[in-house]
Amino acid sequence: MQTETPPENEDLSDGLDQERIQSVIEAVDAQDAEQLSELLEPLHAADVADLIEQISPPERMALVELWGEEINGEILSELDESIREPLIEALPAEVLAEAIRELDSDDVVDLVEDLEHEQQSRILEALEATDRIGVESALSYPEYSAGRLMQRELVALPEDWSVGQAIDYVRNNEELPDQFYHVILVSPAMKPAGYVALGRLLSSRRDTALSDLMEPSFRTVTVTDEESEVAYLFNHYHLISAPVVDENGRLAGVITIDDAMGVLDEEHEEDMLRMAGVDEDSSLTDTVFQTTKGRALWLMVNLLTAILASMVINLYAETIDQMVALAVLMPIVASMGGNAGTQTMTVAVRAIATRELTPRNAIRVSWREITVGAINGFGFGLIMAIIAALWFGVPMLGAVIALAMLFTLVAAALGGIVIPIALERLNIDPALASGPFVTTITDVVGFFAFLGLASVLLL
Amino acid sequence: MQTETPPENEDLSDGLDQERIQSVIEAVDAQDAEQLSELLEPLHAADVADLIEQISPPERMALVELWGEEINGEILSELDESIREPLIEALPAEVLAEAIRELDSDDVVDLVEDLEHEQQSRILEALEATDRIGVESALSYPEYSAGRLMQRELVALPEDWSVGQAIDYVRNNEELPDQFYHVILVSPAMKPAGYVALGRLLSSRRDTALSDLMEPSFRTVTVTDEESEVAYLFNHYHLISAPVVDENGRLAGVITIDDAMGVLDEEHEEDMLRMAGVDEDSSLTDTVFQTTKGRALWLMVNLLTAILASMVINLYAETIDQMVALAVLMPIVASMGGNAGTQTMTVAVRAIATRELTPRNAIRVSWREITVGAINGFGFGLIMAIIAALWFGVPMLGAVIALAMLFTLVAAALGGIVIPIALERLNIDPALASGPFVTTITDVVGFFAFLGLASVLLL
Repeated sequence: MQTETPPENEDLSDGLDQERIQSVIEAVDAQDAEQLSELLEPLHAADVADLIEQISPPERMALVELWGEEINGEILSELDESIREPLIEALPAEVLAEAIRELDSDDVVDLVEDLEHEQQSRILEALEATDRIGVESALSYPEYSAGRLMQRELVALPEDWSVGQAIDYVRNNEELPDQFYHVILVSPAMKPAGYVALGRLLSSRRDTALSDLMEPSFRTVTVTDEESEVAYLFNHYHLISAPVVDENGRLAGVITIDDAMGVLDEEHEEDMLRMAGVDEDSSLTDTVFQTTKGRALWLMVNLLTAILASMVINLYAETIDQMVALAVLMPIVASMGGNAGTQTMTVAVRAIATRELTPRNAIRVSWREITVGAINGFGFGLIMAIIAALWFGVPMLGAVIALAMLFTLVAAALGGIVIPIALERLNIDPALASGPFVTTITDVVGFFAFLGLASVLLL
Repeated sequence: MQTETPPENEDLSDGLDQERIQSVIEAVDAQDAEQLSELLEPLHAADVADLIEQISPPERMALVELWGEEINGEILSELDESIREPLIEALPAEVLAEAIRELDSDDVVDLVEDLEHEQQSRILEALEATDRIGVESALSYPEYSAGRLMQRELVALPEDWSVGQAIDYVRNNEELPDQFYHVILVSPAMKPAGYVALGRLLSSRRDTALSDLMEPSFRTVTVTDEESEVAYLFNHYHLISAPVVDENGRLAGVITIDDAMGVLDEEHEEDMLRMAGVDEDSSLTDTVFQTTKGRALWLMVNLLTAILASMVINLYAETIDQMVALAVLMPIVASMGGNAGTQTMTVAVRAIATRELTPRNAIRVSWREITVGAINGFGFGLIMAIIAALWFGVPMLGAVIALAMLFTLVAAALGGIVIPIALERLNIDPALASGPFVTTITDVVGFFAFLGLASVLLL
């Protein structure tokens, strides 16, 4: 998979296949450092990191002992945090310093920002003075801000230069970033005025003014903007790179789309895990203890809301006592409500994240959800009415469950849309907190409606 | 927000603010075409599309009538499908043809692939012959394949050229793609051998061989690869662009990271909606009827599994009749099980999507989940035992609920991890089908364990 390899229709997913992992483990077991290097060297850093993550902790330790000196900065960057920390701890100081020095500033920041203070200092000390100041300045911006995400390596040129001047500058500059796709035009006060794509630079006459070639998609980001905003901006406007300015509007760095794509992916993971009540920092390599802790908080919240729902049931203990069919059927009402509520809530949380649900259409969308809830509530209520009436031979029981389902599914729709919107207005992540609220509402309304109606209409 | 505007620390999200939407609606109401153009022209196509999506259907119709001729291909590309179709229907043939011609081949494909046959022909006829053949050839590849995603506009150069030859070629070529970041090196048989980043091209001596400048990150994609695989590849290897080859290994097109980022975003939306049982093609602009239909399928599945759980309860109707406290407490057991199962399932579905959960670590991760389930089951069982014993004054009831919670949370963990893995092996999207299976298991096990233990230990 290296440059030299002809790309012979390879399978996309086989950068790291199970066979290679098996061979790696065998080489580690045999303490065969040479064979190990041969197996690992052709791999992309991302694949080496995946391999290190997937093998068992003892295998991992043995591999690092045997091959640790070859671990470079890129591999460290790709590793999951929970594994990166002990690994950094274990690496000899020179190996670590060497690994860090080859990284771009944004990768160093990504690497050190979650480390403990002591490890952080160890890494910063390994950097050259100018790089260290850059990293320290990035770390002074809030976590998850554009200032942390940006790299300081960029190409900025005076806005009044011509194509020829730009090409000569780039050609004679030894310290260009590894990757750059635009040259940024700046005013004498270092304020970015636009950018020119390299393709356009290459294909224009030398005497063309750079300012005539600026891309209309130009947008700047401020160091304090949240990285999730930045990812949204890249995806929405199809940006490839965006200059980052400091509080005074001066050029401070640049964010490229590959970093924005990484953030988008992380944001999605966070949303998904939060909606399921899983600690969003959790990882597959966490220990049992970390995992248990990460799950317990939400289970505690769920226990409290479940007890609340039980208290509603308890209000009607006598009703149930008189007709045990109610106990049999009541979970159906709550379950249907919970599911309908989750459907609406998920649509709402996603639409808020993509900025599709706005104050402009909130009322329209809410009405649609409530109407849908009423139609499905009516339809499934009818189905369930027939089943219940036949099952227990009590026609009125059918009427009760039909009405209860109608109420509950309307309440589910209402809760599913109103709660995420309200949380968003309160600046609480809707993904984090909507779930418990919505299921509490559907459980409570479901049991209340079903048992309450039963106590009035049946007994 | 145009190139000319100095980027004065603007708020990221204000490309489209509510005030501007209000002004647009007022201009539409007043039939003031001039004012409308003034308001819409400075906006990015993505923002115009958002605006069209967010206003009400009658406002939308009025806007299109007044401003329809200004709608360009980019705006059409950005629009949600459910709105795009009627809009294309409504546009005059010349406006449509004009709008389509300015698009890159991949955008035209994206635009036409979901249209009905008649509309598709209308658009294809508007294209010039060579473009039409390109689009038709892309449409011959399967939906959601790399062949559909790629653009045919690219810069391919002989692999034995020098930097000077490359620069001269680019400089004298009138028909370059709008955006390109690499030149692709090809063999005489048009097989891609590597690529060179434009930045490297610009900064190297004219006599350098291009083959000495090739990026190590080079990876090719095959036209038939799934677009989700492509998005994974870009994110995993931090690619900026990737050449696409046909079945014979010949260069057919190129995919750039902005398209891959769009796919990644869509894949996430799909996962999220599927896990919540919402039709993944649904959109906020769907009608009530479409929405109801999109939700009903999953609610039907849920109804069936809920009835199954009720049948378990019905087995113990007599037990409940003797002790109504069981009816009060049983939803707590099922609810905790459902939540724990959803937690594990979500982690598993995500880890399968990111290729972190593999045959290599499946057993290890499963054991971790089961252990976590047992610990949380024990802990929350204990808490609930004390609450139940105090609430109903029956110590043995506490023991029953504690044991039932332990069983249920272990079953939830087992189901939450095994079911997604099994579905993946069967080539069924784990996100689509895990939910109903897991909650059925937790409900059935929960009610069975709690009521079964109660019937043995309490009565």
